[in-house]
Amino acid sequence: MQVSFTPTELASIVSPVEIRGEYLGNIVGIASLSDADTGDLSFLGNAKYKSDVVSSKASVVLVPKEYELPPGKGIAHFVVENPSASLARLCARVEQGLWPKPSPGIHASAVVGEGVRISASATVGPHCVIENNVVIGDGTHLQAQVFIGAGAVVGDDCRLAPGVHIATQCQLGDRVRLHAGVVIGSDGFGYELVDGRHGKVPQVGDVQLENDVEIGANSTVDRARFGRTRIGEGTKIDNLVQVAHNVVIGRHCILCAQVGISGSTTLADYVVLGGQAGVAGHLRLGKAAKIGGQAGVTQNLDPGAFVSGNPAIPHMLERRIFILSRRLPDLFRNVSSLAEEIEELKKASDS
Amino acid sequence: MQVSFTPTELASIVSPVEIRGEYLGNIVGIASLSDADTGDLSFLGNAKYKSDVVSSKASVVLVPKEYELPPGKGIAHFVVENPSASLARLCARVEQGLWPKPSPGIHASAVVGEGVRISASATVGPHCVIENNVVIGDGTHLQAQVFIGAGAVVGDDCRLAPGVHIATQCQLGDRVRLHAGVVIGSDGFGYELVDGRHGKVPQVGDVQLENDVEIGANSTVDRARFGRTRIGEGTKIDNLVQVAHNVVIGRHCILCAQVGISGSTTLADYVVLGGQAGVAGHLRLGKAAKIGGQAGVTQNLDPGAFVSGNPAIPHMLERRIFILSRRLPDLFRNVSSLAEEIEELKKASDS
Amino acid sequence: MQVSFTPTELASIVSPVEIRGEYLGNIVGIASLSDADTGDLSFLGNAKYKSDVVSSKASVVLVPKEYELPPGKGIAHFVVENPSASLARLCARVEQGLWPKPSPGIHASAVVGEGVRISASATVGPHCVIENNVVIGDGTHLQAQVFIGAGAVVGDDCRLAPGVHIATQCQLGDRVRLHAGVVIGSDGFGYELVDGRHGKVPQVGDVQLENDVEIGANSTVDRARFGRTRIGEGTKIDNLVQVAHNVVIGRHCILCAQVGISGSTTLADYVVLGGQAGVAGHLRLGKAAKIGGQAGVTQNLDPGAFVSGNPAIPHMLERRIFILSRRLPDLFRNVSSLAEEIEELKKASDS
Repeated sequence: MQVSFTPTELASIVSPVEIRGEYLGNIVGIASLSDADTGDLSFLGNAKYKSDVVSSKASVVLVPKEYELPPGKGIAHFVVENPSASLARLCARVEQGLWPKPSPGIHASAVVGEGVRISASATVGPHCVIENNVVIGDGTHLQAQVFIGAGAVVGDDCRLAPGVHIATQCQLGDRVRLHAGVVIGSDGFGYELVDGRHGKVPQVGDVQLENDVEIGANSTVDRARFGRTRIGEGTKIDNLVQVAHNVVIGRHCILCAQVGISGSTTLADYVVLGGQAGVAGHLRLGKAAKIGGQAGVTQNLDPGAFVSGNPAIPHMLERRIFILSRRLPDLFRNVSSLAEEIEELKKASDS
Repeated sequence: MQVSFTPTELASIVSPVEIRGEYLGNIVGIASLSDADTGDLSFLGNAKYKSDVVSSKASVVLVPKEYELPPGKGIAHFVVENPSASLARLCARVEQGLWPKPSPGIHASAVVGEGVRISASATVGPHCVIENNVVIGDGTHLQAQVFIGAGAVVGDDCRLAPGVHIATQCQLGDRVRLHAGVVIGSDGFGYELVDGRHGKVPQVGDVQLENDVEIGANSTVDRARFGRTRIGEGTKIDNLVQVAHNVVIGRHCILCAQVGISGSTTLADYVVLGGQAGVAGHLRLGKAAKIGGQAGVTQNLDPGAFVSGNPAIPHMLERRIFILSRRLPDLFRNVSSLAEEIEELKKASDS
Repeated sequence: MQVSFTPTELASIVSPVEIRGEYLGNIVGIASLSDADTGDLSFLGNAKYKSDVVSSKASVVLVPKEYELPPGKGIAHFVVENPSASLARLCARVEQGLWPKPSPGIHASAVVGEGVRISASATVGPHCVIENNVVIGDGTHLQAQVFIGAGAVVGDDCRLAPGVHIATQCQLGDRVRLHAGVVIGSDGFGYELVDGRHGKVPQVGDVQLENDVEIGANSTVDRARFGRTRIGEGTKIDNLVQVAHNVVIGRHCILCAQVGISGSTTLADYVVLGGQAGVAGHLRLGKAAKIGGQAGVTQNLDPGAFVSGNPAIPHMLERRIFILSRRLPDLFRNVSSLAEEIEELKKASDS
């Protein structure tokens, strides 16, 4: 992380209502209270870490008004309305340095087909390949080595990292952000067994990513058998996730890393899937359903359901069964004892 | 999906024996009965969806001879011998539009090494890199940004999507289809702990993909430690699958998304693995063994075995144990009651 | 595998103390005793496979001094101090042929930014993209189509396979080896729900890979929210692994394929994770902790702990519960019988 802010710059960004103590150097890093070293800025975002402020080596700490202890020597406390909000402004500033706005234009090494419409404000980086009849919107940035297949449409202000692959005729809305190696529109996995061989079922549909979708590195979204695989507005997908053909994902869902959604399954809005969870095909997951990490969903879920385990069952039941299963050794022993006691009672009653 | 067929074109492709009702417009989409809208073609592939034909908005429906209800106003029913077969012909036609046969030749931006033999009927797209002594067969298409390492051989009529990587000396048969980001021939994962450090065990074997293998986006197949990692004819592999070094996969197997096969394991023909299943190393899975989604296979499997769970056990047993485990709360309660009853019996017999 | 050694070359590499029998041809392959064919070399690395030597078709077998049976006709036994060590030397020789040292220099098709410092002994292959202010050390090899973001540093003697992506400002030590499609420094997965929408939390930290780290094909390592995601010296990571933001992995750890580590979790040195295992966020795994395949770790682990299952519990307990759970059908039956017996005892005592 390359960060360097003078005290004056820092104050202008985080807007302290009061500065306690003094640190005259530049801020050269941002870290949690416990990880911070001299030269770093840290913050008290949650009152439960209050005691960490005293022991932290951070040179500047963003603290809320309620925090009252004085800073150590050579340390400044910047009292702010909301430390998390101030930190977010600071990080946004650092982010501008990380990802400066590129100059519009098409790099000389890019290969661009016929009938392509690329906005004058878009940037197409080195070694990109844009096939025929592609449309690329205003302010969109294809960083490098991106592939856009024939007839695909990319909206405004999108950012496609190196190695992203958009297959023919797929559609991206505005402000879509795809990280390195993402594949949109690979063939769905469909075969028909004929005479002992798997014959390919043509996959002629496409993929639509609505506005504000973000997808993590090396994740894959298959094109539909026919019709459309669709990911709703504002949905965020982590790395190495698989979305199969004809899946429909609602708006504002969260799919953590390595999740897999099988074909034709539908997720309503605000569904959350924990890491490595899997969902079988042709299911419907209701609004705001929550699926635990590594869960295996094999049935439709009601809105608001919270499930875990494989096969997934209601989370509280799963927890209870897990706890009881750890007591199985006792249970087997108890049942043996009971059997013996019954034997004795029988003998006693026989005698 | 960009589709446009006039009624005449449509009839010539799906070969109706009879047309009931009339729709004069063009067909601009294909969809299931329940998803279809005006302008779409749909089909009755399975008698159990019969009632959906009446409520469908599809403008043209492919129906079998047995279907007798009349179409609604402005809707045409095309009576065909086999709706699924007719649909497949139609989709194949759409597919030709999606993936038109490219002109043979090597794009000016491709980098080609020495001693390379590329068939005159093959196509090497933009920004491909072909190292020395590679062989590429007739009609094969490297779409764009493909990498082929030194001495590798790619057969006839293969299709390699953008970003595919074939490492040095790997061998592909004919009609192999690799989706975007597939990696063939990365090093196997082998180390020997010497003096507290993991020393690399050289991975000097290669990978062979036999005819008609298809592999999904971003999947990886490691080269052998020595000898050969092999995937048999007609086997189909989904996205984000890992095949480790020295694995041997038989013919016509199916590996769903995110499956992982550990080193030196052997799969006979027609093995099927559900999504996210994992198989430990040095195992043998018999012909047509079937492994449930998320299962963890830790033992050899007999031909025809069907297992699930982790560790995987016969599916029916796993199902039964799952159902019983949900009844554990009752069982614990029952055993407590029995214990109390025994106590009472004891007291009674003592008194 | 393209291998060809004359008997003289072979002897000079494996240094036999004695040669029994005779094979006059060239060695054209390396294989296990059971897989080997005429022309292959094999080896007896473990005394328990002793009986396989007799039945092996290998033309040359590396055997230890203790092995005494004579070779068959046309077969040579090379008696060596340590068959595994001799084999390793042979494989290292084959490896040099597979991956010959490339000529230093920057390929004409590479795109290189401003302020870049590339060592004169480094190799930058075709279609690489090197952004501004990147540093690349001595002897490092970027094979092809590699992307290095602005301000990133790559140390000496690294090897980056085709399609590797290093995002801006990430840091690689020496002898780092990244296989095809690896993504280093993609954004961490962090959002804050505001007014029903997931607002992006800027991810402005970076990633550091220390010396001798190796990472398998298509694996992903996210940049830190702030600060640094770090992978310690000598740690080896397999294919399709996900390492989330702010994770800190110690030295000499082993992460098998498809493992996922959630954000801010810390692994001490020598931790080993089996394939498809997952670790929740904000945990600490102690030194040399061992996690079984597909395990789901939800709690901190003590040094040396060995856990499996989901949620992960001590391995021996997990084994025991698994075995008992398979006996659940019996247990339920037994408890029913006991209940009946108690009923009878009650009746008897009532009468």
